[in-house]
Amino acid sequence: MLSICRPIQRTLASPNIKVIGPKWKHKACTSARFHSSAPNASDQVIFSGIQPTGIPHLGNYLGALQQWVHLQNTSPPSTKLLFSIVDLHAITISQDPAQLKQWKRESLATLLAVGLDEKRCGIFYQSSVPAHSELMWILSCTASMGYLSRMTQWKVSPELLQTFGLKSSNMWQSKLSLQDDASPLDGGSKSKLKLGLFSYPVLQAADVLVHRATHVPVGEDQSQHLEFARECVTNFNHAYGPHLVSPQTIMSPAKRVMSLQEPHLKMSKSHADPRSRILITDSADEIYRKVMSALTDSTNSVSYDPSKRPGVSNLLQLWSHFDAEGRSPEELALACRDMNLRTFKTKVSETIAASLEPIRMRFAELMREDGGAYVEHVEKQGARKARESADSTMAIVREAVGL
Amino acid sequence: MLSICRPIQRTLASPNIKVIGPKWKHKACTSARFHSSAPNASDQVIFSGIQPTGIPHLGNYLGALQQWVHLQNTSPPSTKLLFSIVDLHAITISQDPAQLKQWKRESLATLLAVGLDEKRCGIFYQSSVPAHSELMWILSCTASMGYLSRMTQWKVSPELLQTFGLKSSNMWQSKLSLQDDASPLDGGSKSKLKLGLFSYPVLQAADVLVHRATHVPVGEDQSQHLEFARECVTNFNHAYGPHLVSPQTIMSPAKRVMSLQEPHLKMSKSHADPRSRILITDSADEIYRKVMSALTDSTNSVSYDPSKRPGVSNLLQLWSHFDAEGRSPEELALACRDMNLRTFKTKVSETIAASLEPIRMRFAELMREDGGAYVEHVEKQGARKARESADSTMAIVREAVGL
Repeated sequence: MLSICRPIQRTLASPNIKVIGPKWKHKACTSARFHSSAPNASDQVIFSGIQPTGIPHLGNYLGALQQWVHLQNTSPPSTKLLFSIVDLHAITISQDPAQLKQWKRESLATLLAVGLDEKRCGIFYQSSVPAHSELMWILSCTASMGYLSRMTQWKVSPELLQTFGLKSSNMWQSKLSLQDDASPLDGGSKSKLKLGLFSYPVLQAADVLVHRATHVPVGEDQSQHLEFARECVTNFNHAYGPHLVSPQTIMSPAKRVMSLQEPHLKMSKSHADPRSRILITDSADEIYRKVMSALTDSTNSVSYDPSKRPGVSNLLQLWSHFDAEGRSPEELALACRDMNLRTFKTKVSETIAASLEPIRMRFAELMREDGGAYVEHVEKQGARKARESADSTMAIVREAVGL
Repeated sequence: MLSICRPIQRTLASPNIKVIGPKWKHKACTSARFHSSAPNASDQVIFSGIQPTGIPHLGNYLGALQQWVHLQNTSPPSTKLLFSIVDLHAITISQDPAQLKQWKRESLATLLAVGLDEKRCGIFYQSSVPAHSELMWILSCTASMGYLSRMTQWKVSPELLQTFGLKSSNMWQSKLSLQDDASPLDGGSKSKLKLGLFSYPVLQAADVLVHRATHVPVGEDQSQHLEFARECVTNFNHAYGPHLVSPQTIMSPAKRVMSLQEPHLKMSKSHADPRSRILITDSADEIYRKVMSALTDSTNSVSYDPSKRPGVSNLLQLWSHFDAEGRSPEELALACRDMNLRTFKTKVSETIAASLEPIRMRFAELMREDGGAYVEHVEKQGARKARESADSTMAIVREAVGL
């Protein structure tokens, strides 16, 4: 797999991004036939997706979107770039249809606003490309329930897990919100578990595999899913021959962005207090108000100590991510050692606001133009590219399966 | 729902076919909103599917195909008729790709040979219409794992059932072929259970619902699946509004066609001895040989007594199904009371062969013409009709879900 890997590694100037090859756990995968359709360097395909759940906050931006833009700007022209708003994943939990529509458009505008180039990339809604669902079904027929159970998306009561023969996983946040004392035989709890939520890793695998993606940038908490996608490749290729491509993970070291209100928690869309997060389209005023109200501590000076001073350290980390001189949190703490917290917070908010200003302006412009008509136009173009990409894979898959 | 039902009932001249309305189990279903999009009589849509598993035998023909032709010939012109070769279902168990391709073409030729009119009906491969998979995913997001578990497609060891929290069902034949002593913790057994096999009732529901089918002819053993499809309608409509149509079951009283070799078992494709079944394309010679070798008993005369003389009674039933004068097995037994078994069997084989001869001829002709090119042409036309039908439903569904 090195031959695939090298060109990407060469272009990735940032020392913070590393490419992680497939973990070849399975004996079958060491066999040459699983490499015979490995693409040439010129066949590199980068794919990633984002859920349409409203305007991204700084955690989403620094953890994923910034990396996508970096990949776009550093990949050779022969690399195909596809980024999807994964609306079919959004409906695994209950959604308001009108809001989902709005969020989809906003998400797409966001991708353009942060710097993705619609001419260079295919940017599209997942539901515009039927092949994602088609391949999902085909992968379902060789995907084992056992493996799926072990990597499940939801944290449920031990009884319910046992009912479905599942093992508990601490990594995942609950999407079911079951009570700890829910009984597996209680119709209410059991009916809460929908097939979509259970099987969504297979759709996620299809998202990647249907474009023969060679590299997938993901956050730390998504690496298990890429491993499952590789498992799906192994299962399919074992049954039908070496037709699907095993994707590699592009992982950037976690840029942990913590809540402004509870700096021991990650910044999150679901936190009740909107002051806990900065959205990438927040105005300078909004950013100022949020940073000024950020929870710090009673020491009215600046120092970097994530365990003892999590609030101040989080602000230093945030500043560091946006610092034009690329200073580390420690260096910034040293530079600010004579400031009181009020002055320090003002500086932090100014730095963030200045960095986000172009994004905010571009976003507003995109959403204003004919009520987002340009955004929808971009999506149509992107969907066409993505359908071409997916249809060529599906032609291979259909032939292999005998459909 | 009576207004939908009436025109169909009027046209179904045969007293052997009855329409069974949805069993409105759920409180929500009695509410008016679930009826507001009930179609007019002119919107009647009949849909059914058949798996591409080789040439149908008499059981398939008398149980399903004959009924489809009857429906075609008796429905008003305003009724849309769609019949699908459900190849995506075929791959829930392991298939040889080349054989699957061949079986698909043969199945389609069979539908034409038995008398379906390609100009009147849409006859198509399921995999030619991506909306089947697309709607399946959307239905998955509101389909409960609990309900799915209870109607599962496979008979497995009690331990494995318990592991997955499933209840045993005697109705279903095993598709997994697990040993009785297989342990649920044995990786081999657990990995045998694939998501496709577990979740296939949802795809089956999508097959029906994506065409807004109002009436679905099914065999006795499929009625549970139609009930699940109605459950999917309830779940979807509850979440998104009254957009999907609840299909009604058209059930013909079971025409039990038993194995010629083991007349206590149903005639089946999977029986090891090919003499146990008559294929609808068998020649007169083949039919003669199979009927002559049919297991009867030591009494060398004819009488109808299914419990004491299952072999002879099965042959009388078969004859009755094809009898030009429409005589019952009892009447035929009376007419043959002076025959020995050899003469009787000869008469049975002649009657069956004469009835099947036009089917056999037409089938051979269809498969000969340009190696089945006409069959593929018919499929393309059918797929276009089916895509139009499915796409109009998907437009409604997408809008409702917010995609």
